[in-house]
Amino acid sequence: MVDTRLQRPRGTRDYLPLDCFKRRVVIERIRSVFERFGYGEVLTPAFEHLELLEAKAGSEVREQIYWFEDKAGRKLGLRFEMTTPIARIVATMPHLPKPIRFYYIAPVWRYEEPQLGRLREFWQAGIELIGSPHVEADAEVIAVTWYSLRDVGLEDERIEVRFSSRALADRISDALNIPRELREDFYRYIDKYHRYGIEYVVKGLESLGISRENIEKVRELLMIEGSNEEKIELLDKLFGSTIRTELEKISTLLDLLKSYNVKNVVLDLSIVRGLAYYTGTVFEVYVKGQEDVGSIAGGGRYDDLIELVGGSNLPATGMAIGIERLIEVLERLGKLPTDYPRPVAAVVTPKMDLYSRCLEIANLLRQHGIPCIVDVMRRSLRANLEYAVKIGAKFLVIVGEKELKLGKVAVKNLTTGKQMEVSIHELPTFLKRDNVVL
Amino acid sequence: MVDTRLQRPRGTRDYLPLDCFKRRVVIERIRSVFERFGYGEVLTPAFEHLELLEAKAGSEVREQIYWFEDKAGRKLGLRFEMTTPIARIVATMPHLPKPIRFYYIAPVWRYEEPQLGRLREFWQAGIELIGSPHVEADAEVIAVTWYSLRDVGLEDERIEVRFSSRALADRISDALNIPRELREDFYRYIDKYHRYGIEYVVKGLESLGISRENIEKVRELLMIEGSNEEKIELLDKLFGSTIRTELEKISTLLDLLKSYNVKNVVLDLSIVRGLAYYTGTVFEVYVKGQEDVGSIAGGGRYDDLIELVGGSNLPATGMAIGIERLIEVLERLGKLPTDYPRPVAAVVTPKMDLYSRCLEIANLLRQHGIPCIVDVMRRSLRANLEYAVKIGAKFLVIVGEKELKLGKVAVKNLTTGKQMEVSIHELPTFLKRDNVVL
Repeated sequence: MVDTRLQRPRGTRDYLPLDCFKRRVVIERIRSVFERFGYGEVLTPAFEHLELLEAKAGSEVREQIYWFEDKAGRKLGLRFEMTTPIARIVATMPHLPKPIRFYYIAPVWRYEEPQLGRLREFWQAGIELIGSPHVEADAEVIAVTWYSLRDVGLEDERIEVRFSSRALADRISDALNIPRELREDFYRYIDKYHRYGIEYVVKGLESLGISRENIEKVRELLMIEGSNEEKIELLDKLFGSTIRTELEKISTLLDLLKSYNVKNVVLDLSIVRGLAYYTGTVFEVYVKGQEDVGSIAGGGRYDDLIELVGGSNLPATGMAIGIERLIEVLERLGKLPTDYPRPVAAVVTPKMDLYSRCLEIANLLRQHGIPCIVDVMRRSLRANLEYAVKIGAKFLVIVGEKELKLGKVAVKNLTTGKQMEVSIHELPTFLKRDNVVL
Repeated sequence: MVDTRLQRPRGTRDYLPLDCFKRRVVIERIRSVFERFGYGEVLTPAFEHLELLEAKAGSEVREQIYWFEDKAGRKLGLRFEMTTPIARIVATMPHLPKPIRFYYIAPVWRYEEPQLGRLREFWQAGIELIGSPHVEADAEVIAVTWYSLRDVGLEDERIEVRFSSRALADRISDALNIPRELREDFYRYIDKYHRYGIEYVVKGLESLGISRENIEKVRELLMIEGSNEEKIELLDKLFGSTIRTELEKISTLLDLLKSYNVKNVVLDLSIVRGLAYYTGTVFEVYVKGQEDVGSIAGGGRYDDLIELVGGSNLPATGMAIGIERLIEVLERLGKLPTDYPRPVAAVVTPKMDLYSRCLEIANLLRQHGIPCIVDVMRRSLRANLEYAVKIGAKFLVIVGEKELKLGKVAVKNLTTGKQMEVSIHELPTFLKRDNVVL
């Protein structure tokens, strides 16, 4: 019988030191980009009142919220993203100068079927740019996303930004007479185009009772080929003045992204995003050749959310990068460190009555920023040597009576096997010489 | 009527950029100490199977677990500490070389009555040293705690380590004939001595039916005065050979801590810790003059836990620092930064058709590591100036037609009000000159 206590909950992971180190490298590079764009970090509680989370999640996501009642009978839910909690903060702090630039790097939780690139607990690194209704804000958000992905090691030509506009999709849906009450489901099927293919979308739209003629039009729109300019021209021809404002915004956005030097931006009408709160520009980022992982970042404009959760009418736009998916891709592409910093030295002695000298010497090394360990097992010199090798320490510092009398210790290089005497006051410099130290 | 959507769940906090920056400074200093002692980071899921968490929580903490059933009917609970989840990892990875040195910096959740220094969501930075039954391991754990607190800015003389031993308490309880089935409650009352005073403990013990004579003995033991040596001598006189082994361990621990240069270590029989899994050395750390916040760190030996959750028989010892309490204390003592890094520059233009040049210049600055922002509100120069001042930017970089023709921009120092022209290729160096840049 398997002991359930030993099992992690389904769809979750443990992160051991190498995993944590890789994550830290990735996260700190992303943080650096966010901060260079002027964003300040925020953090909210893991759980919120369920009512807040459900405000505009959309039915699909609402089903995925882990929720519970606390002992006072309040319904609380684990956050499934960070945008809604940040909307709550902004709604309660009307004095903050606009635009507000906030970033976060935090775990979120969704009760979904676990699969490649989809965990029930996963981390997002994202930004919210709040207060501007203009496409300049959308361009900035996409640029921050792009530079974040580039700075963690993805080559320019691998990063593909696929974008569209919810407002454009709404105007087109109006033109096709898609009933308003079907819109959420309509977009939900379209959103699955890249994951499940066109036939899945067609069947979904049939199940909604969309006419055969309209389904054909949707199929054509999803599969338009050509440059962004050609697509815009075709859409203008098909729908004319009803969508002209939206097409102009899209053209401006493309121009701005050129100035940002963001490459591979593709207009793609299948991009509508799963969350129901989007109102304008929407985008997803894929890594070419790694599309099976899904989009590694996504976002868009949500002009109604802050008012909806009780704040004033504040237009906003933002994005989130999926840390686990990004790490999966970076791992495959060999862009991550293959080891984490190990202790530089193990300070040991063959004579237990010299143990306190080991502690003092280890203290000295740590004062100089050198990670080191001492024996806590009362082991023999041989057993300590074996352990030091196993955990990847680079040196064994041996504290012996004879050497101590001369103010020295023996240092064994565990890579070369060479051993030499080093005076204690030169030990930090000696050990640092060939070691990158935290 | 108050809109519940706008309320944070009771006992939780939001962290705005200054809060996050302070936390980051504290956390990174602690991380550096952990790593210099050779510990590697681990992270576990926010929730675990409830059965695991309840394994040896003790009745008080068991009541504080936030738990829920997922859609498959599994009982899951938010972790209330990190030791049990890490025990699960270790139990499932028998091949890891011993001793194992793991650290974590992560939030935990407890449904308690919120008060000063007690939130329902709080962060812990802690270590686990797994595999050694020896007091050398306990000494290392206390030393790591002490150096962590010192490196975040607490003066040596402010840090007070109060320690005892569960094994010692058990031997004394045996000598006093405290029935085994009352031990958990017995210790729970004693644990409250520093928080609620001696009369609270006495009443609690009366409610358990402990004899008047024994209560008097407990009162004396809790209130012993004198040096550690005097206390050890007195205990030896009172209980003799039944506790001699434990007293010897305590003396050794004190000697080791002297070699570590750890100061202000006080033997205190009231320290038994709230969690039921402790078996040996237990300790708590207080900051002198700030005792109202409660202990800011605590830990001890838990030799049975890993076997109890299904692993092999592995002795272990560890500790956790309460990040919010520590920050509260550091804040009071003026040891934290009073501001966070603001954008160095706002790059703006009076002519909207030069906006793309602003983006290019901002890109250049960011490549040089200079945090800066651009306008996304289509604001006038004056409005941009006001905003830049409000958010604490140090310079306004004004992109004008005339200057651009000469390859220059105007730079206004927002502190002094002075304005001058700077050539674009010298701009990064110019802005960096007086600025510490991330």
